[in-house]
Amino acid sequence: MKLPEFTDIEKAHELIKPFIHRTPVLTSISINEMTGGDLYFKCENLQKVGAFKFRGACNAVFSLTDEQAAHGVCTHSSGNHAAALALAARMRGIPAYIVMPETAPEIKKKAVEGYGAEITFCQPTLEARETTLARVAEKTGAIEIHPYNNIQVICGQGTAAKELIEDAGRFDILLCPIGGGGLLSGTAITGRAMNPKGLVIAAEPEGADDACRSFHANKLIPSINPKTIADGLLTSVGEINFRIIRRKTDEIVTVSERGIVRAMRLVWERMKIIIEPSSAVPLAAILENKVDVRGKKVGIILSGGNVDLEKLPFHELL
Amino acid sequence: MKLPEFTDIEKAHELIKPFIHRTPVLTSISINEMTGGDLYFKCENLQKVGAFKFRGACNAVFSLTDEQAAHGVCTHSSGNHAAALALAARMRGIPAYIVMPETAPEIKKKAVEGYGAEITFCQPTLEARETTLARVAEKTGAIEIHPYNNIQVICGQGTAAKELIEDAGRFDILLCPIGGGGLLSGTAITGRAMNPKGLVIAAEPEGADDACRSFHANKLIPSINPKTIADGLLTSVGEINFRIIRRKTDEIVTVSERGIVRAMRLVWERMKIIIEPSSAVPLAAILENKVDVRGKKVGIILSGGNVDLEKLPFHELL
Repeated sequence: MKLPEFTDIEKAHELIKPFIHRTPVLTSISINEMTGGDLYFKCENLQKVGAFKFRGACNAVFSLTDEQAAHGVCTHSSGNHAAALALAARMRGIPAYIVMPETAPEIKKKAVEGYGAEITFCQPTLEARETTLARVAEKTGAIEIHPYNNIQVICGQGTAAKELIEDAGRFDILLCPIGGGGLLSGTAITGRAMNPKGLVIAAEPEGADDACRSFHANKLIPSINPKTIADGLLTSVGEINFRIIRRKTDEIVTVSERGIVRAMRLVWERMKIIIEPSSAVPLAAILENKVDVRGKKVGIILSGGNVDLEKLPFHELL
Repeated sequence: MKLPEFTDIEKAHELIKPFIHRTPVLTSISINEMTGGDLYFKCENLQKVGAFKFRGACNAVFSLTDEQAAHGVCTHSSGNHAAALALAARMRGIPAYIVMPETAPEIKKKAVEGYGAEITFCQPTLEARETTLARVAEKTGAIEIHPYNNIQVICGQGTAAKELIEDAGRFDILLCPIGGGGLLSGTAITGRAMNPKGLVIAAEPEGADDACRSFHANKLIPSINPKTIADGLLTSVGEINFRIIRRKTDEIVTVSERGIVRAMRLVWERMKIIIEPSSAVPLAAILENKVDVRGKKVGIILSGGNVDLEKLPFHELL
């Protein structure tokens, strides 16, 4: 399989521009003073559906031919990709079928329903999700859009870093979180092309460190029983994603749960934006001195802002 | 006294541009669907110090001659103006003296101290604040910068609406909250000049409705024992502000406390940004059908985002 290149990300950007928000890039004097760096935050928490996932879903949906799109799209997801795919499908006017574990948060179910997708519930195991999805795909003829192990999705995700560099110039370091690797693989392709002298670094929770271990072992090591408050980063790195990441990423570091909550709270308080725990992982890496940003210009992708306001973690871990 | 004109706001904008953030304008599909309007939110919660107040403070501080500025600036405030004046003074390299009631929240005291201002505490009464400020001004020679009843402050605040119209085009309605009237008077001057066919409407909490009553009586009626969760709007309208507002504003409406909390929560959940209760007052007016936005293009100024994360009001009033 041919891996995607930066020209594919440029094409993706042209395709999805009418549908996505060009999210703002924010800075904070106080966080700069605290870290000694010159930090630029790309606010994908302010993207449609509240996460960068909408870029990839949008590119995947609008890259389909009319014939391919005729029977709709499907995926299994309990998170942001489900909502992103549902909205992208609605925008194209095709059906979306989402397989979700029964245990998914009420708020996520409502969001997906609100975008007009048809939900099929299943047991909360990976096996049940995959079996149910196969059945749904067979019955409907819908095309599966994987949340990250998909070239169109990767190209869509790479447009966030492209906008960041277009709007704020080149960086010494580009930083993003890593879960399945959709965002990192897209960011790494963009980074190497538009920002060739800068480093591409990813941050991962200690409790879900399969990407870090895989990167340093130079082979894919799946995640076993990952556990972290950063619920967007529980997944194992995808195979296509890893092939890109091992070539184009400079380092993957890990952070503590406390560090994630502290960084999340700092962004809420100082920047007045709502980010989910996964988004706070890169700043946690800076605050825990895993990435040295002193005197450096750093671009950070804040991945999403979907957090349950009823269950804020600020008291649990600090 | 000559009232400020739009050319004064243009001059203010040139003066303060190097120091302020040009804050983003955000939109929300779901809030548009819910209200039937086409709403554009000017995010002054993302302004430096987390509030539009920095614009006015900055214009006031940088409008001083070197001679006037030599002994610094002073004010009494327990809120966003204190932090705004402290930061603006630090940027100009002059001292700031802030009189604060002993009862001010710890987080506000720390913010003001963090910007290097000298705090003098006093009893939490208006009389004590004014007496103490007079003493501080006499002792230091610092120039008082009133939080809203000040022409330079008004001109600074008017730059938010100017950027909003520059970035998103003309509006059918411009909406902002009203407390002392600094933001509304500046917005109204800008609105009449740049957006002459549109309405300028302000929203105010029912529990602090002196501006609404003053506007409809066509004379200034001070606030007595105002009570609202929107702590930035407890003040009575200023005299200069009212002279502008009565000429250039089309309507002032009031909203309930429940409505404020609901609108605040809606913005947090759907737009992923943190706004303080005062900022939610205009959206509350739309949700409570006090302002009809169906089919209309509406610009809304979100005034600030300084809220105590330990004391979120979402459970109290819903």
